[in-house]
Amino acid sequence: MIETKLDIQENPNKKAKPDPDKLQFGKTFTDHMFTMEYTRDKGWFQPQIVPYAPITLEPAAMIFHYGQSVFEGLKAYINTQGDVQLFRPEENLKRLNRSNARLSIPPVSEELLLEYLKELLSLEKDWIPRAEGTSLYIRPFIIATEPSLSVAPSKSYKLMIVLAPVGSYYPEGIHPVSIQVEGHFTRAVRGGTGTAKTGGNYSGGYNAQEKAADQGHAQVMWLDGVEKKYIEEVGSMNVFFKIDGQVITPELNDSILEGVTRKSIIELLKDWNVDVVERKISMQELHQAYKDGILEEAFGAGTAAVVSPIGELSWDDETLIINGRQTGELTKSLYTTLTGIQTGKLPDPFNWTVQIK
Amino acid sequence: MIETKLDIQENPNKKAKPDPDKLQFGKTFTDHMFTMEYTRDKGWFQPQIVPYAPITLEPAAMIFHYGQSVFEGLKAYINTQGDVQLFRPEENLKRLNRSNARLSIPPVSEELLLEYLKELLSLEKDWIPRAEGTSLYIRPFIIATEPSLSVAPSKSYKLMIVLAPVGSYYPEGIHPVSIQVEGHFTRAVRGGTGTAKTGGNYSGGYNAQEKAADQGHAQVMWLDGVEKKYIEEVGSMNVFFKIDGQVITPELNDSILEGVTRKSIIELLKDWNVDVVERKISMQELHQAYKDGILEEAFGAGTAAVVSPIGELSWDDETLIINGRQTGELTKSLYTTLTGIQTGKLPDPFNWTVQIK
Ligand SMILES: Cc1ncc(COP(=O)(O)O)c(C=O)c1O
Ligand SMILES: Cc1ncc(COP(=O)(O)O)c(C=O)c1O
Repeated sequence: MIETKLDIQENPNKKAKPDPDKLQFGKTFTDHMFTMEYTRDKGWFQPQIVPYAPITLEPAAMIFHYGQSVFEGLKAYINTQGDVQLFRPEENLKRLNRSNARLSIPPVSEELLLEYLKELLSLEKDWIPRAEGTSLYIRPFIIATEPSLSVAPSKSYKLMIVLAPVGSYYPEGIHPVSIQVEGHFTRAVRGGTGTAKTGGNYSGGYNAQEKAADQGHAQVMWLDGVEKKYIEEVGSMNVFFKIDGQVITPELNDSILEGVTRKSIIELLKDWNVDVVERKISMQELHQAYKDGILEEAFGAGTAAVVSPIGELSWDDETLIINGRQTGELTKSLYTTLTGIQTGKLPDPFNWTVQIK
Repeated sequence: MIETKLDIQENPNKKAKPDPDKLQFGKTFTDHMFTMEYTRDKGWFQPQIVPYAPITLEPAAMIFHYGQSVFEGLKAYINTQGDVQLFRPEENLKRLNRSNARLSIPPVSEELLLEYLKELLSLEKDWIPRAEGTSLYIRPFIIATEPSLSVAPSKSYKLMIVLAPVGSYYPEGIHPVSIQVEGHFTRAVRGGTGTAKTGGNYSGGYNAQEKAADQGHAQVMWLDGVEKKYIEEVGSMNVFFKIDGQVITPELNDSILEGVTRKSIIELLKDWNVDVVERKISMQELHQAYKDGILEEAFGAGTAAVVSPIGELSWDDETLIINGRQTGELTKSLYTTLTGIQTGKLPDPFNWTVQIK
């Protein structure tokens, strides 16, 4: 018999809710967390909601040695009816299992996990901030726990969900940032782990991120690992360009992470009858479009920022200034529409949102 | 004032020593471990030897999310004088700092860390097994501990050293294994993290490892990420080929881990006046040499196995049988000489070993 009944231990020591104006991203957590264990004998078992607290692991736990881990990131909002609202959570859970497969971690039941998440969110509803631009960031993650130094998939895992109320990504309103095109460091390559949300993909980018920050840029734009020519992503976001009226985003391959925001933007644009294509696009082509005066807008897309306009692209010795460093019209519309649907302020014709009563 | 004085808390509950014949790799640990902390204010501080015990971390500790970690692996032996003996530990500590740099982790003092390690080994001397082929495996590692979900280098770290008595890699004597040449998955690419010993490089290889195991092979041979043509490593080892009397090993690049065993083998071969070269070598070239009957020996090289002969290479539909699936003469000499120097059974003309009195 597999144990799937959720056990809930309420936290008797509730914390004070933070000031929503002072929230830093991912540093404040709610009163409870979800945990579940895996062993080869039992499969996933012991789902429980417990007080948020430190966890204890063997120093030999495989997560500390061989990086076998995956994670997800999505947000919950309070909609205009006062209900908890999620944005396409099934997409995140599907991706979690795709990441699991790539990291040789056993799959989880997406249906059950969504149920457990809903329970957790119901319990923590008061933690969801309501101010403009704020939300509750949801971080499911899985770590390898077997205490063993052999280089092989772990025989045991821990899945956790922690919740972090987060402030507005744009406290001063949406604004374009400066991005450095990364010519040396590589985020991911075909046959690698780039399509998975696994830890190593992120820390592997820190050198490039620090270099960009030193030179005054907010983030890096990643090129493909094979030819160092084709645009892949920007920071931890997918990327879009508007060139001569057409919207172009790099086509999915074996090294790009498939974002839920990216997918939603493509669907939105199609619905709007805006010409949108997924195809390879090189820095050379982008530069030519810039010189021809037809590079109209550029933005990153991901859960954290939703949409992040690019004002400036620094590529070797060149600086491409996009739309006079102003947020483009289409970028703005996408931001307004997506955040509107996510928060329930706009209707949801696509059935993207899930309400928790 | 930076606190560098080592604090030692002896374990009052010593465990029974394991049967050296029953040791599995990296599953049994000694009575003590070394730990040290890092914060931006203090640098590395609070070096201590404490009873081996689980550690407690926030669920938001960065190691669980973004894989910021590095590790090392080396061995201690009891030499013929009865002293503890290490093999080129400075090389491992140098590499630890190279890995740190790549993962945006602050450097550690190699001198101090070697002193702390020596103290730990003196205390745990009785844990070092003495039987043929056995040793004490030393695992230093560093993990990011800051509780924060922002994608950025951690502001705090924990460095630990744990010790695991390990049995012989070859309980039935050194013997060749079957290797699958991996055409799809990629271990590392230029601009990536391949030159660092960081967790993600290892779990990223599990899919390939499982596929190879399913098809009856012991390990995979990795090809370069750009052209999928040039040989890089085999499993978690560097690789050598003897072709027509000459020894060839892939030249170091931005995606190969520089092994201490590899380096020592090159130095040994030069000392022996064996022709050895570091250069690019493709699977095509290796296959041609095989067809020409001049592929004489092949082996992996790394701390765990020291030398691991390759008896068979499976490449797409072809099977290259090397030296009639027997361990080659040169492979055998290298194994005997290296293990002889490491354990103190043979003289050490290169000053590679370090004794702890
Ligand atoms: C590397 C990377 N690319 C793109 C994205 C965007 O994905 P999503 O829109 O699902 O947040 C993410 C996650 O946020 C990511 O980590
Ligand atoms: C990827 C990889 N290659 C090669 C090696 C061999 O290095 P060393 O000889 O220092 O053990 C190792 C470590 O054992 C490794 O992890």
